[in-house]
Amino acid sequence: MTSETAEFMSLRKAAADFAWEGVARHPYKDAEAGPFRAISRQILFSDPRLDGELRYFEIEPGGFSTLERHAHMHGVMILRGCGQCLIGMAVHTLNPHDLVMIEPWTWHQFRASAAEPLGFLCLVNSARDKPCLPNVEEFALLRANPAVARFLDGA
Amino acid sequence: MTSETAEFMSLRKAAADFAWEGVARHPYKDAEAGPFRAISRQILFSDPRLDGELRYFEIEPGGFSTLERHAHMHGVMILRGCGQCLIGMAVHTLNPHDLVMIEPWTWHQFRASAAEPLGFLCLVNSARDKPCLPNVEEFALLRANPAVARFLDGA
Repeated sequence: MTSETAEFMSLRKAAADFAWEGVARHPYKDAEAGPFRAISRQILFSDPRLDGELRYFEIEPGGFSTLERHAHMHGVMILRGCGQCLIGMAVHTLNPHDLVMIEPWTWHQFRASAAEPLGFLCLVNSARDKPCLPNVEEFALLRANPAVARFLDGA
Repeated sequence: MTSETAEFMSLRKAAADFAWEGVARHPYKDAEAGPFRAISRQILFSDPRLDGELRYFEIEPGGFSTLERHAHMHGVMILRGCGQCLIGMAVHTLNPHDLVMIEPWTWHQFRASAAEPLGFLCLVNSARDKPCLPNVEEFALLRANPAVARFLDGA
């Protein structure tokens, strides 16, 4: 490997507005994989020699991620803006640099505020299962909690 | 698990000056593990069910991490301040949100600027080898490059 190649591979400078040189901004996920709104995904570190991946998700004002759960865990750090998340039956307000740990099989969803985007880093295992969406009964159980229902309604 | 317990475990709010509720600020490493100066370590995500760890290191103005290499990789994101890093034979200037990938067995060191701290996130595999320090011949080879020598001297 020449030093030019090493240099190119080893550094990706931050650009304006939470973009990075050589990092593509992707759709959050396939449209059929569940309801979501106004969210993008950038893969910051993913390599066969790394057992974890670091991604950057950004939700536009008023947008939200899919309400889902799965066997794998998430370690999240908020990078910009503000919003809320649902973890299990608890709704949390989120500000820059807050840390969120999402345990296996815990329902979770992120929402940006109406006025600001919500951008966050997400650490996951490179090998992981696919998310599950709530069925009718599970969704009703979540909505039975008034604070959770208000969160799910974006109210 | 009660919802209070889940809430406690799932959120760690950011505090002032890059600290977090419930996260301890540790020494960087044991003093005998190599030369370094004015650097602290906070473990943000480390869990038996996560294959990767996310740590936050902060180097005070004028401080530096150990010059070392190892089989495992680092994925680094700068969070605050400015400084420089050596990766192989290349010296890079670092600013907030820059991404640095350190390949296996690549010599690397981070230095804060004289005026500002340098704080960065570091993604590593949970299972990883111990770092190696340069021997006399390896150190001489690095110093033979004038830009590398200036970096190592903190000049």
